[in-house]
Amino acid sequence: MKKEQLLYEGKAKRLYQTDQKDVLWIEYKDSATAFNGEKKETIAGKGVLNNLITSLLFEKLKAEGIESHFIKKISDHEQLVKAVEIIPIEVVVRSTVAGTLAKRIGLDEGTKLPKTIVEWYYKDDDLGDPLINEDHIEVLGLASAEELTLLKEKGLQVNEVMTAFFKEIGLDLIDFKLEFGRDENGQVLLADEISPDTCRLWDSKTGEKMDKDVFRRNLGSLTEAYEKVLNRLGGVKS
Amino acid sequence: MKKEQLLYEGKAKRLYQTDQKDVLWIEYKDSATAFNGEKKETIAGKGVLNNLITSLLFEKLKAEGIESHFIKKISDHEQLVKAVEIIPIEVVVRSTVAGTLAKRIGLDEGTKLPKTIVEWYYKDDDLGDPLINEDHIEVLGLASAEELTLLKEKGLQVNEVMTAFFKEIGLDLIDFKLEFGRDENGQVLLADEISPDTCRLWDSKTGEKMDKDVFRRNLGSLTEAYEKVLNRLGGVKS
Ligand SMILES: Nc1ncnc2c1ncn2[C@@H]1O[C@H](COP(=O)(O)OP(=O)(O)O)[C@@H](O)[C@H]1O
Ligand SMILES: Nc1ncnc2c1ncn2[C@@H]1O[C@H](COP(=O)(O)OP(=O)(O)O)[C@@H](O)[C@H]1O
Ligand SMILES: [Mg+2]
Ligand SMILES: [Mg+2]
Repeated sequence: MKKEQLLYEGKAKRLYQTDQKDVLWIEYKDSATAFNGEKKETIAGKGVLNNLITSLLFEKLKAEGIESHFIKKISDHEQLVKAVEIIPIEVVVRSTVAGTLAKRIGLDEGTKLPKTIVEWYYKDDDLGDPLINEDHIEVLGLASAEELTLLKEKGLQVNEVMTAFFKEIGLDLIDFKLEFGRDENGQVLLADEISPDTCRLWDSKTGEKMDKDVFRRNLGSLTEAYEKVLNRLGGVKS
Repeated sequence: MKKEQLLYEGKAKRLYQTDQKDVLWIEYKDSATAFNGEKKETIAGKGVLNNLITSLLFEKLKAEGIESHFIKKISDHEQLVKAVEIIPIEVVVRSTVAGTLAKRIGLDEGTKLPKTIVEWYYKDDDLGDPLINEDHIEVLGLASAEELTLLKEKGLQVNEVMTAFFKEIGLDLIDFKLEFGRDENGQVLLADEISPDTCRLWDSKTGEKMDKDVFRRNLGSLTEAYEKVLNRLGGVKS
């Protein structure tokens, strides 16, 4: 596989074309951003940690029957994935109140939800990734009703598998964000990344935050927290 | 009917009990507020205009088969209504992009929507009346799934009747907000007010704004605009 031209540089990753049309080469960057890019830092080692964690999680999901764009890890900070057309909707799944949900509905952070909440956010940095509903999605033509049903179903499936998986290693999965895309046949596939950048993970015993809130809220060393997650997942930095 | 103790004073109205348990006495106030109470003014004559317009609109809806809490107008600035337990959800129905929708989804104000949009907002001043979805509503216990189905249906019905009605008098109904409540039998009833405070109305020919945006955006005399709406509806101040 040959890395070819840069397709897109985002806040956390660089996407390259390869000599195979339907395969992309992803490079995880050492950069942390929050609050829609307002807070920004270079953090050495973060790219490697997120690449390793994402790879382990996509492998775990595959073992449980949930397919994704993930093909394989090719270095500590790089992986190959199936090229998809990203659906510009961030699918957020929540089991416990935290972050913007606490502000929105006025429940305390840490409140266990009586049912799992699924939210749609419009993936648009200029608009600040706003919460949207099914009518907005239809009007903007972001996804079909059938695709939304699928996105919700898959979001809840991923939640079940990951909640159980993290529980085994002493972590509570509070909430997470997924992105999906369409492959060349229009099939919807789980894409992007699943990492402490996109999940909230709290130590089951101490409640210690082991996710991007460490960066958002200046709670200590981000890479120390992410490395603990990686180690509990059975991964190691080489 | 006797006016008894003050039950609740809101931003636009005062609610009094009466000597009849299921009947409330509403007084429309001469006060205008916007941006969650940040902008606030006393505007002489506004209460009368909104009371007269709301009364005419609830009568029109009734004639078209849509019931509401409205019993009768008892003076220029007062009316009697059925007491209900307000469901703390603002039901917003939109035919054309304006206001916060333009900011949320990035379409220009004035864009005609390919389909009518219905939105739920959590009626909570402290939280700033945030947009919410069905999962939030379920978790907060604000309304049942059956009630939501009814709210959406009624919202769309009111939209059809009012759009046609305003069209006849040269006004485009852009969007509006409804509130609903439960009567003593748990029946869901359209409540609160329908006025230029709660609807966006644009002159069909000139595009002139004849609603609360005149106040929000300092576009001229609010009462002149509301009086034009009242007159077109066939009403007059006595
Ligand atoms: N398999 C894929 N095919 C195409 N694009 C993808 C794939 N997986 C993720 N992407 C996109 O790659 C981009 C880069 O990721 P990231 O740096 O996280 O960007 P952003 O700043 O938008 O969050 C994102 O737009 C993401 O949606
Ligand atoms: N029929 C009714 N029974 C009980 N409460 C009502 C009824 N109609 C409207 N209300 C409530 O009356 C209150 C006063 O109205 P308003 O001044 O507009 O208040 P707000 O500041 O909350 O917008 C509101 O909380 C509204 O929901
Ligand atoms: Mg991203
Ligand atoms: Mg009100």
